[in-house]
Amino acid sequence: MVTGLGSRFDTIVESLGPLCVGIDPSADALRAAGLSDSAEGVLEFGRAILAASVSRVGIVKPQVAYFERFGARGIGSLEMIIREAREVGLAVIADAKRGDIGSTMDGYADAWLGHGPLHSDALTVNPYLGFDALEPAFSRASIHGATVFVLSATSNSNAEQLQRATISGKSLSALVARFARERTGKDNTVGVVVGATRGLAESGVTEADLDGLLILAPGFGAQGASLSDLSTIFGAASTRVIPSVSRSVLNDGIDNISRSIDRHRKEMGL
Amino acid sequence: MVTGLGSRFDTIVESLGPLCVGIDPSADALRAAGLSDSAEGVLEFGRAILAASVSRVGIVKPQVAYFERFGARGIGSLEMIIREAREVGLAVIADAKRGDIGSTMDGYADAWLGHGPLHSDALTVNPYLGFDALEPAFSRASIHGATVFVLSATSNSNAEQLQRATISGKSLSALVARFARERTGKDNTVGVVVGATRGLAESGVTEADLDGLLILAPGFGAQGASLSDLSTIFGAASTRVIPSVSRSVLNDGIDNISRSIDRHRKEMGL
Repeated sequence: MVTGLGSRFDTIVESLGPLCVGIDPSADALRAAGLSDSAEGVLEFGRAILAASVSRVGIVKPQVAYFERFGARGIGSLEMIIREAREVGLAVIADAKRGDIGSTMDGYADAWLGHGPLHSDALTVNPYLGFDALEPAFSRASIHGATVFVLSATSNSNAEQLQRATISGKSLSALVARFARERTGKDNTVGVVVGATRGLAESGVTEADLDGLLILAPGFGAQGASLSDLSTIFGAASTRVIPSVSRSVLNDGIDNISRSIDRHRKEMGL
Repeated sequence: MVTGLGSRFDTIVESLGPLCVGIDPSADALRAAGLSDSAEGVLEFGRAILAASVSRVGIVKPQVAYFERFGARGIGSLEMIIREAREVGLAVIADAKRGDIGSTMDGYADAWLGHGPLHSDALTVNPYLGFDALEPAFSRASIHGATVFVLSATSNSNAEQLQRATISGKSLSALVARFARERTGKDNTVGVVVGATRGLAESGVTEADLDGLLILAPGFGAQGASLSDLSTIFGAASTRVIPSVSRSVLNDGIDNISRSIDRHRKEMGL
């Protein structure tokens, strides 16, 4: 089984493009899809998205919170989604936004980037406890060619409450990008999350800050940004952006996810 | 079943004091305890700590990462530990450091502070995506008298990489405390995490910043701070501090956890 997102990013882009489809089985999404709000419902929902994603996109991103709602049984459904996605060649970004220190961070790295049942090709993490505290995740990722996406600038309206804070005139979001550039290697071990609904300027990062980094960009589709604006938003950095769509893939109903994905591909010129 | 940590904090302190015992089944801790590094091992480890904690302390704090390592089966063990702890009257702080936005944050709030199998009396969260983004957790917590502890200043040596950033001269750690003071109510719905190994001054928060807040303080015991120094470190705020010890409760081996807890109680003058 080929593993890791970072080490095969170029291959994925060459064959299917960089579009990423989110798997977000919220209570609302399940209701809209006519599925039960349960561990069985999130599994069925995830499988419907996987079936429509195969041969249309190369990357999927399950949002862990929606599975965690059902405790062990929900995490069991997530295990199956991750395994089935990887078996058909989809790269999985576990959107878990974990972050801790020392041996606790080891634990999270082990959970998502180790050999256990949640083994994914990439993981999102939170830098509030210090960039260096995330090192266990970076080390694990580099073993499997995986990528750790560190939150830099997020797409929500009150993100700037903390992210606009500065050290020596540099915003936190830019600092995170700088640390990431210093740590990432040829296999894209470290990337960043930069929300797309605000322009780069408002996010406190510049194209130069992002130079050479893989960028996971949520906020497309239902959250406001249009995929056709990707190069306007990210400029020179746009060739390394992984735009993610979630709620909007359900616009035509759960039986027509493939049609919604095709429309998004067209918006990107794929 | 009486629930929530915030609403019964005073009662807990009156009967057993504020000491909190961590449940941290890392690979190293399991090895030292002679237990297998597996979902069964973390369950057995957790149960040993629960047995020694009853009638000695009022609060336990499972570290979620160590259970998550084993996927659904590990989370299944955590469900049992949480339920068994609450059944014997221990208040459970789920140390998960979750943080996200919108309906995703709803998902985490639902998972840990809702009616599901991981329902706990308190949850730790990460503010990097904005303090307001955590509102779903605060709302949920207030329903059950639970407490959401927001990371403010952590005890690791590279925490200041981001936490020393400022907005209008205020450190992030102080800003988080200010937001928490504005949002917490009479039931201690919102508290903060302030690491104890560094003094308050180095953490960028003052006693005044913490006025009226419940403070979860990891970093005692094995990580360096002594419980007898609690009032020196936290000053006037020390009456509302929940000091947490983890690795050091294993100093006398897994068969003598109660002895280690008794020693810690003595250090606190309990």
